[in-house]
Amino acid sequence: MASWFRRQRPRVEAPTLTPRDTAAAALRVDLGELAPSPDVFLGHCAALHLVFIEQLTTAMSNAPRVADKDALARVSAVALERYQGIVAELERHQLDKTDVMQPHLEGVEEFERRTQGGAWYEQVASAHVTIGFLTDFWVRLAAGLPGDLRGRVVAALSAGDLEGPVHRIIERAIAANPALSSRLALWCRRLVGDTMLQARSALVLHGDRSKDEAQIEPVFTELIAEHTRRMDRLGLTA
Amino acid sequence: MASWFRRQRPRVEAPTLTPRDTAAAALRVDLGELAPSPDVFLGHCAALHLVFIEQLTTAMSNAPRVADKDALARVSAVALERYQGIVAELERHQLDKTDVMQPHLEGVEEFERRTQGGAWYEQVASAHVTIGFLTDFWVRLAAGLPGDLRGRVVAALSAGDLEGPVHRIIERAIAANPALSSRLALWCRRLVGDTMLQARSALVLHGDRSKDEAQIEPVFTELIAEHTRRMDRLGLTA
Repeated sequence: MASWFRRQRPRVEAPTLTPRDTAAAALRVDLGELAPSPDVFLGHCAALHLVFIEQLTTAMSNAPRVADKDALARVSAVALERYQGIVAELERHQLDKTDVMQPHLEGVEEFERRTQGGAWYEQVASAHVTIGFLTDFWVRLAAGLPGDLRGRVVAALSAGDLEGPVHRIIERAIAANPALSSRLALWCRRLVGDTMLQARSALVLHGDRSKDEAQIEPVFTELIAEHTRRMDRLGLTA
Repeated sequence: MASWFRRQRPRVEAPTLTPRDTAAAALRVDLGELAPSPDVFLGHCAALHLVFIEQLTTAMSNAPRVADKDALARVSAVALERYQGIVAELERHQLDKTDVMQPHLEGVEEFERRTQGGAWYEQVASAHVTIGFLTDFWVRLAAGLPGDLRGRVVAALSAGDLEGPVHRIIERAIAANPALSSRLALWCRRLVGDTMLQARSALVLHGDRSKDEAQIEPVFTELIAEHTRRMDRLGLTA
């Protein structure tokens, strides 16, 4: 096991942000200082990808039309590829999958239950919102990983195109039934809280509330802006 | 679209089998004469693979242990690869996915409901029995496809290793809880009838009952023998 696993990273003083600095800071701050150790990062991220795979295949199975089933099968394959990329890093560092993933299963499964839609198009929308937000989040969190691992993790999280096809499935569903628009807008809004809590559960806070919030806030502001753009592209109010 | 699509294949006289010929015939007969046209073959086989993917990811999601989840994620990727291989043939022949797959969705989904287990280990056993039997079946049915397509379809259906990892998952589950053995033996026996009906639904019968049965019987005898060997390797009575 590489020596940097389970080692405490040194504390770095967080820059104190005044409100007028926030917008500028959002362009450069990342979550590296609040990142967990690599083994915890990889274990949580891998467990979460199992949930992504399940969200997508459940939607695939419930979709009534072949074109949507086929597209969802393909994005499931992308989620599986990303999962396998993350697990490959566990293996490269001779980490035991069970040791590092098991502690996160309950949390990610509870998250899945809270965000699982009933109708297939809600299930696709859940996948779109949560995978989109959380992938953005984990890419930023990867800033806290050692250089070589960071690059490979970001590459794994960026493998394939998942967002584009899922966007087009929802677009097709809305085109076929425009009444879905307002329902999906509400549904997606409802998902954001649980998704942010799931993201936040991955952070290692320093315990100094104002410093922690100063680091978290600009990143979450950026992630919500990304979410809003994702909704905008579907013509949905975020 | 290739000219052989939707063309009626010429009828060939089936050899009349006496009972003592059956065992020898089983070694060489195939289902080629009862195979549907290539478009129907590919559409049904692709739709069925969507069910396989779902069976495996449902079991993945319900498995309590990381090692089993991980193994099931990997075999889901294999099922997805096979699905994409079959769909690639649809695309190569410019067949519309919806046209050829939609007619089979109801049947394969009904089959899935009938064979879906409650507990995660029943779900894995269902996947093992049904995917094993039906893959053997579709490989034999592929004998009815034109040569070049046949080779690519058999290659797609043989991609990756699905049976080995699923076998090992069930083996681990039984080792952890030997009481599962008799329950799983019964469960797997219960699955065979629905699985054979699903296979049979893909055949194009000639309407001459005795001739049809003479062709079907030796192949099904062989498939059941394969199934029995699959159960034997798990120490389960078929």
